[in-house]
Amino acid sequence: MSLLVVGSMAFDSVKTPFGERDNAIGGSATYFSVSASYFTDVRLVAVVGQDFPESELNFLAERSVDLTGLERKEGETFRWKGEYGFDLNTAHTLDTQLNVFLDFQPRVPDSFKESEYVFLANIDPELQASVLEQVKSPRLVACDTMNFWIEGKRDELVKTFGMVDIVVINEGEVRELAGESNILKASRKILEMGPKSLVVKQGEYGALLIQNNSVFSAPGLPIEDIHDPTGAGDTFAGGFMGYLASKGDLSRDGLRRAVVFGSVMASFNVESFSYDRLRTLAGEDIEARYREFSDLAHFERL
Amino acid sequence: MSLLVVGSMAFDSVKTPFGERDNAIGGSATYFSVSASYFTDVRLVAVVGQDFPESELNFLAERSVDLTGLERKEGETFRWKGEYGFDLNTAHTLDTQLNVFLDFQPRVPDSFKESEYVFLANIDPELQASVLEQVKSPRLVACDTMNFWIEGKRDELVKTFGMVDIVVINEGEVRELAGESNILKASRKILEMGPKSLVVKQGEYGALLIQNNSVFSAPGLPIEDIHDPTGAGDTFAGGFMGYLASKGDLSRDGLRRAVVFGSVMASFNVESFSYDRLRTLAGEDIEARYREFSDLAHFERL
Repeated sequence: MSLLVVGSMAFDSVKTPFGERDNAIGGSATYFSVSASYFTDVRLVAVVGQDFPESELNFLAERSVDLTGLERKEGETFRWKGEYGFDLNTAHTLDTQLNVFLDFQPRVPDSFKESEYVFLANIDPELQASVLEQVKSPRLVACDTMNFWIEGKRDELVKTFGMVDIVVINEGEVRELAGESNILKASRKILEMGPKSLVVKQGEYGALLIQNNSVFSAPGLPIEDIHDPTGAGDTFAGGFMGYLASKGDLSRDGLRRAVVFGSVMASFNVESFSYDRLRTLAGEDIEARYREFSDLAHFERL
Repeated sequence: MSLLVVGSMAFDSVKTPFGERDNAIGGSATYFSVSASYFTDVRLVAVVGQDFPESELNFLAERSVDLTGLERKEGETFRWKGEYGFDLNTAHTLDTQLNVFLDFQPRVPDSFKESEYVFLANIDPELQASVLEQVKSPRLVACDTMNFWIEGKRDELVKTFGMVDIVVINEGEVRELAGESNILKASRKILEMGPKSLVVKQGEYGALLIQNNSVFSAPGLPIEDIHDPTGAGDTFAGGFMGYLASKGDLSRDGLRRAVVFGSVMASFNVESFSYDRLRTLAGEDIEARYREFSDLAHFERL
């Protein structure tokens, strides 16, 4: 089924203890789209400058990412520069150049307006809300955010959360937004804002799926060769939403499987800089890693 | 089957964001024994001073903890004072008074020498080794340690690790001892020291069981009312070893179930100061929580 994503496309310059890469392709919508494209067709709404390589757009198009909603504007593409220490769960931003992203006003093309699944990647919560005003009765809407909006546009963010079905955010953001250190209490406060489900990303420790009467803990797969965690959260969201859109099963079990597929895709992503590892995956790679997650978490019931 | 534990008994004064308690009963061997006593009879080797309450020893004896190996010496019992911030995974030690624990030389009584299961709680690694010289061919030996010994008695610790089957330690200690940030690589370095299995305690995130060709991730149960994490690791070890000793199943599946029972016991322990919550558990409470863990981690295989 149709999956729409709105977010950023960028050049990332990243340094980790395991290497560095300048001007690699990045951006939340890019990571999301590539990841989700392994499960379903994707519709992309984003903006790039004149410097974004045509070859990369061709790669996305070949992976069945519909670029009708991509604006190419005068100027340069959004650039982010960051660094990670051995704690790969925390990025230190060194520089941000918004460039053409500065006055991004997402416009959903007519051909995308009946999208059934919508993911609002991390952008200004007012823009996230404006996207929802443009789409007609989607079946499922999920969104991400970041500390910048929690601190700078809290009211707008809470309003957007009131319009979505699922919020997918980091553990630290859950605690910050709720003003509560206990993750279960903090999560309940977010659910009170409107969403029916909350996916709490815990970095290398996996993810929680929290609903009113149910908690699911997806394990984090210990990875021997981590190179770069950039984009792991967006890749997770791509696997999660891509799987849901491909199956249409929004039951508790369906959502749990989707969280594991999100974790599977993120586990591939951290094995390389940019989304190099996601360029050449095969369907059987994804299934094999899902089975690894199953084995990792398996223990007998009483 | 018979389970021997050697470790500390103490008075703890603890402050957490959720309250404080002075001179509560604590100590690694105490927490371990109470926890393990829900699964099997326990044999305790430890030392207390004249100030340790007789009523507490009676409580332990009623829970089928054999106190033949408990020395009561002139002087005061070991005292620890610590504090936790909102990061409940990290204790800040404010004061340590070793008292009678200072010259503790564990003596295993004759009636304990044929114990089949042995747990060496966190004490000087040379003393841990001396215990193993006193017991006859146990079926399974596990041990714990802490950063103090990693930093101060590394060679002795590595020697002790070479004599045990299972090491049960914190994630941070695994990284520190191995000098390696990647948890999988660090764990392999510990396995090269001799043990066949490593249990990596991850605080609220659960625990990993790492063997040569297998990794298991036990989830951490999100707990709404955490009061005091003191003793959680020893309580975990008590459930883990107690279950193994009660069943005698050392297969991969048996070890995985034991890790979950360890997690179950630790999840009860953090709900109160000292081991208050462990005083009044019923068998069905433990089984019900094991089922909660099963539900928490369950997702369908492909």
